Parts: sequence; C-alpha cells; structure tokens
Amino acid sequence: MTERLSGAAHLDRLGNGVDDLGDRAAALDAADTLAGFRDQFLGSDDPAIIAYLDGNSLGRPLRATRDRISRFVEEVWGRRLIRAWDEGWMDDPVRVGDQIARVVLGATPGQTVVGDSTSVMLYKWIRSALASQPGRDEIIVDVGNFPTDRFVVEGIAAELGMRVIWLKADRTSGVTVDQVTDVTGSRTALIVLSDVAYRSGYLTDVAAITAMAHDYGALVLWDLCHSAGVIPRRLDDWRVDLAVGCTYKYLNGGPGSPAFGYVRADLHNRLRQPIQGWMGAAEPFAMAEHYTPSDGIRRFLSGTPSIMGMLAVQDMLALIEQAGLEAIRAKSVALTEFAIEVSDRLLGQLGVAVGSPRDPAVRGSHVTLEHPEFHVATERLWEMGVIPDFRPPDGLRIGLSPLSTSFAEVHRGLMAVREVLWQQAS
Amino acid sequence: MTERLSGAAHLDRLGNGVDDLGDRAAALDAADTLAGFRDQFLGSDDPAIIAYLDGNSLGRPLRATRDRISRFVEEVWGRRLIRAWDEGWMDDPVRVGDQIARVVLGATPGQTVVGDSTSVMLYKWIRSALASQPGRDEIIVDVGNFPTDRFVVEGIAAELGMRVIWLKADRTSGVTVDQVTDVTGSRTALIVLSDVAYRSGYLTDVAAITAMAHDYGALVLWDLCHSAGVIPRRLDDWRVDLAVGCTYKYLNGGPGSPAFGYVRADLHNRLRQPIQGWMGAAEPFAMAEHYTPSDGIRRFLSGTPSIMGMLAVQDMLALIEQAGLEAIRAKSVALTEFAIEVSDRLLGQLGVAVGSPRDPAVRGSHVTLEHPEFHVATERLWEMGVIPDFRPPDGLRIGLSPLSTSFAEVHRGLMAVREVLWQQAS
Repeated sequence: MTERLSGAAHLDRLGNGVDDLGDRAAALDAADTLAGFRDQFLGSDDPAIIAYLDGNSLGRPLRATRDRISRFVEEVWGRRLIRAWDEGWMDDPVRVGDQIARVVLGATPGQTVVGDSTSVMLYKWIRSALASQPGRDEIIVDVGNFPTDRFVVEGIAAELGMRVIWLKADRTSGVTVDQVTDVTGSRTALIVLSDVAYRSGYLTDVAAITAMAHDYGALVLWDLCHSAGVIPRRLDDWRVDLAVGCTYKYLNGGPGSPAFGYVRADLHNRLRQPIQGWMGAAEPFAMAEHYTPSDGIRRFLSGTPSIMGMLAVQDMLALIEQAGLEAIRAKSVALTEFAIEVSDRLLGQLGVAVGSPRDPAVRGSHVTLEHPEFHVATERLWEMGVIPDFRPPDGLRIGLSPLSTSFAEVHRGLMAVREVLWQQAS
Repeated sequence: MTERLSGAAHLDRLGNGVDDLGDRAAALDAADTLAGFRDQFLGSDDPAIIAYLDGNSLGRPLRATRDRISRFVEEVWGRRLIRAWDEGWMDDPVRVGDQIARVVLGATPGQTVVGDSTSVMLYKWIRSALASQPGRDEIIVDVGNFPTDRFVVEGIAAELGMRVIWLKADRTSGVTVDQVTDVTGSRTALIVLSDVAYRSGYLTDVAAITAMAHDYGALVLWDLCHSAGVIPRRLDDWRVDLAVGCTYKYLNGGPGSPAFGYVRADLHNRLRQPIQGWMGAAEPFAMAEHYTPSDGIRRFLSGTPSIMGMLAVQDMLALIEQAGLEAIRAKSVALTEFAIEVSDRLLGQLGVAVGSPRDPAVRGSHVTLEHPEFHVATERLWEMGVIPDFRPPDGLRIGLSPLSTSFAEVHRGLMAVREVLWQQAS
C-alpha cells in the first residue's frame, strides 16, 4: 500500500452500512435538549479540534471562566488585595465545597472542602481513617484504582505496618460487591475504592459496599474522580464515610485545580487529620501558640488553598445545575451507547474490542477501546486534532463530557480512529 | 473632641519638623532606579488604594500576568487541552522550581520543585527528614515561626513520640545562633526555623546555624516565605539541607499559589517522602502496579500540581531578574529604613514602638510597629485604602515589596496611621 487515500475512499474500501452513522449522529444532536450548552465552552468552534474525547481527563474551559479569571485578577486580587481574604477567600474552601456537595454529591452543607491535590487529600483521609480504627490492621484496595490511590495506600501501609489486601477485578469491569465482601472482616480498617474505574469505566454499587462495610465496622473511602459532575451521587443517603475527587475532569476546574473531599458530619470529631496546618486551626489569625482544630469540616484543611484554582469549577457547577444532573447522566448514557455502537460497526472489523461494560447501568461516562496499535495511533490522532486518551497497555479511552461533547464529535473522532488504524495496518 | 479635623489640621496640631518627610519621600522616589517597575503592577494607579503596605502577605498582580492568564485559558487549556501535559505541564513543577532556584535561591537546577501548599510541603519535608535520622528524637523549633510551621511540627512530633524543643526569642528580634547551638546535640534530628521572622522581620544567620547543625549531624529546614524574592539567598553555598517557601508574597504568584521546596541534591536518595503520589513516581503514565520513586527532585512531588497557579510567579521572576536581586535588596533596606524613620518621627509621640530590628543587616523587608490600638486602627485603615497587615496582639506589619512600593506610599500610609490613631485617641 503506497498511495494514501482520502477518508471517503477508505470508507468505500472498509465499510458497508456505516454511512448512516453520520446521519444518526446528526439526528441525536438535533434531538439533544442539552446541545446548546456546547457553545459555552472555549474552543468548541475551533476547526483544529476535530473531536475532543478526553473531557474526563481535562474538562474544557467555559467562556465564562476566561472572563471571570480576568476580572478576578484585575478587580479582586488587584484591587481588594489582602482584604479579599476577609471578604470571602477564607470561606471559599467550605463554600465551594458546599456547592459541589449540593450540585453533584447529594450531600448537605458542612461536610465537603476544596483544597490540596487529590493525592494529598487521599493521604489525609486515609491516615485519619486508619488512626480512628485501633486494633484493625487491614486495608482493602482495588488494583483497578488509579495509581495515585494505590501508591498512597502502599506508602502509608508500609509505614504503619498494615496489611494491604489487593482486589483484582475483571479488566473490562470492576470489583463487585461479593468480591469486597469476601475479604472484609473484623480486621478491616478501611476500604479504598473508586466508584467509576478509571480504565474500564465500570460503575460500582457504592450504597451496597458501604452498607456491607459498616456491618463489619469498616470505613470506606470513595474516589469519585470519574463520577463527580456526570453521575448523580447520593453520599448522605448512602451513609458514605469519606470521599475525594478532582475538579478538573467533569467539573472543568482547569489543569491541577484543587481536589474536593467529603467527611460525613458525625465522623468530624472522631477523625484527626495528620497535616495540622493553620487553615484548619480554630482561629487562623490568632497566631496561637498551639494547634486547636477548627470545628466541623474546616479542621481537614491544612495550608493556604488556591483561590484562583476554585474559580472555574464554580462556573461549571452553575452550568450543571442549570442543565440538571439527571439530564446530564441521560446524555452521558446516550453518548457512551453511541460510542460503543460506532466502535462495533466501524472498528470491530479492525480488531478493536470494547473494554468497558456494555450495560449502561454499570458504566460511567467513558468507554475504553482496546487494540494493540493504540499507543502509536494516539500520537497520530492528537496531531490531527482528535483527542482521546491512551491508557497502557492498549486502551484508547473515549471520555464523554455531556455538556461539551456532541454525537457528531464522537462519530468524527471514531472515523479518524478507523482511518489511522487502517493506515497503520496498511 | 467632637469635631473632625482635616488631615492638614491634624498635622498642625501634632507635628513639627515632619513636613520635610513628604519631600524626602519624593526625593527618594526620584533617585530610585527601580521606580519605573511599579507601573507594571495592576492597581498601582488606582486612586482608591492610597498605600499598599502588605506585599509580604500578598504581592500585587503584574499587568503581564492578567494577560498571560487570559491567553493561557484561551490558547493552552482551551486549544491544546490534554495534550498540554505532554507539551510542558508535566515539567512545570521542576522547570519553575529551577527558575526560582536560579533567580532567588542561589541554587543549581534539579533541587527545587513547585507544588502543594507551604503547610503540606513542610509536612513532607519534616517527615522525610525525621525518617532519615534514626536514633534521634528531638526537633528544635522557634516559637517565632509562623503558626503553620509550628502546628505541623507539633502534629508530627505527637504522632511519632518525638520531643519538641521550643526556642523563644526576644519579641523584636529572633533566635540567635547561640540560642540554637545551646540546645543542639546528638539527639537533634531536625531544626525548623524561618530565615526572616514573620512578625519582627529579624533576619537569621542561615549559614552559621546550618554549619553548626551539621557539626552535630542534625538537619535544618528553612522556611524562606519572607525572604524569597527580596533578599538574595545562597542555599548551595550554605549547604542548606531543606527549604520551603511560598510564592504569593514577594514572588507575586496570587492567592494560594503553590509552594516551592528545596532538597539538596545529595539528600534525594536518602530521604523518602510520605505522600507517594503518581506525580512523584518514576513513570507516571505507565500506570504501574507499585510505586517506584522518580529520580531526583521529582520524587518529592505527590499529586497533580496547579498549572495555572504557576503562571504569575514566572512573570515576577522575570521582573526580579531584570531588576536584579541585589538592587531589590538595596531598595528594600532603603524602604524599611525610611519606614522606621517616618514611624519614629510621626508615630513615636503617639506611643508607637518599632518592633523590628533597627540594624538593616538583620532585618527583612517588613517592619512591625506596635501600639495597643492597632487592631481597631487596621479596620479603619483598610476602609481608607491604606493596607498594612495586623498581627496580634498589637503589631501593624508594614510589608515593603520593593518593585511595587514607592517611598511616597510609605509616607502616605504612615500619615494615615497617624491620623487614625489620633482620631481614636481623641
């Protein structure tokens, strides 16, 4: 194969019965009541971005965010200066935490803070939990957790001499309630799981696992990075103990925006966090000689939080509230269903497998496709302006952020995947 | 005293021989070779800000920063999207760390990172240091350290069962080399000190204390929050072990911008940091099963760093390099000398005392004035657009950031302090 063919010629050679997919995408977009939101994102009209399929790694900025940040630098930082700490900044970690709790977590106020990175918050929550469970020496962790969750647990367990029980799930799904139950017992101090697996997208039953753990006196820490903002969560109803998540995925907070963390209200006095910083102290400006933790959720803060890092997420939360989280979840399901359909029909014949659950009831908002050539393909796709994510060894992760992604974009993106795979094979 | 007089009338009642201070300020500004830099800061022409005297708590934004951040949201986050991690963001913590090292720390590359908050970085550095000193059970801490430093040490010491030796310095100065030497010995694991005391502004002898500590096998962690960007530091020459500092004071990074941390190169392999996150792992995107620390300074990273939080500091570092840190220090000395002179002549008769060293060789870039009424006065001053900081119980802290502060501003600010004190007294 020496000549390079146009996309249309490729289609002729490869496909039959796939021409209707473009029409289907157009029809789905036309019927989508949330379609109008897409224009509010910067770059959505950029011809150099054919398809952004990685909103689950880094959400797009809102136009409103660009303007808000400019105004912030000019008018708040620039003109209120240090006074702004008294005029609102001090309250931001809890105020924005409460906003996240209300809009996406299903949690009442006073249980959620924003600050640190997800890794640091995981560390704080894990150490706090372990210290509150004397006599228990086991931590249960899913191997399918994102590396940082596992690495943090590994470090703490080694230091404290605790035993880690690693759960290994089927690669295209995630750990089941039964798997967790089998290893939970009176020695279990803490269970650390993700509600949506970062690779497969498997959606675990948070309520059932949490209830089971409580029967054994164990605490559960949920990593909500891949669900916050895209799947309704009901932390209070489920009696979740602890949760963390990041704000730069479906909450569009920008690269490295701070994490959020939830600690159920009745645990606040039982847990003592390890990084005693001034922001978590009872009266930060009293410059007291010794540390006294603040009341409530504030005691889980440590250092000075990134104020600018909390701006963008507030815009996105407002948009999510306007669109409605149930409607967002419905579109997310439709997007992932469509992505699987397109993959089956366009890519299946090229050896691409679907590495995510086919049942939308146990699937988050991304779909992982598998093919041995995806590592090389991703580089080429990125150059073309088709932007999924690559997850070793062979996963192409298609992340679908409902308010900023169209069905046409999914179609265009997977057409390009086909073209690139086909070129590589030829 | 029922009638309220104009400022001029106050001067007539209170003052003699003070009218020349305004002329002196004007003359100092006219002779100041760095005066032109002030226009580059946002808000420097705002008539509502009479005097910003708190650049040591929150540096002003540069005009260049407002533009850079807007461009960043639009062009990098908005159009490069997730690809930007490969195109530079992954390297930012070390690249910007190296820039700080070169411009303000006197350190060669590969020893400085940016990330976390100062509190979290203190925690990581302290735990790393203590774990590397088996058989030693004492930590020496200056009571005059900023609360977060003390709180973090307190928490770690309690958990590990270590003894904290609290050094208490004279309030208007700071701990001396002799004081530290007296309590350092073979049991000393770590000494935690600030080179510039946050309250008095006392500038400690880093080189002498570090050398002394090394004679006993102790490590020293220096908090450089109040010196970085305003006093030349020579960390490599002084063989400093560990240092941290914040970037939102004299480095103008914006509210809650991330901290920087220095670990001397030959300690990298000896120290193991407690928060094992994916950003400090050898190959973050390999999604490995177990944690292997990266080579070099990267291993001290934990979570995803705030990329937007590292933008402003780069603009300020460029400006510092252009102005020259030695010239900045010279202006800082001149500003604090002038502030003390004005205070002596305008405020002394109202009972205001200077709570900072009078010898500029042992003084940082702020001056703390003391008066029992300053707590109330600060509120009134802030309303007027005169913005110092208040430090309990009675300290008015005048922070002088050389590139954004004029001598006229110092004069205007302290004139206003006089007026407010005089009104309160009458």
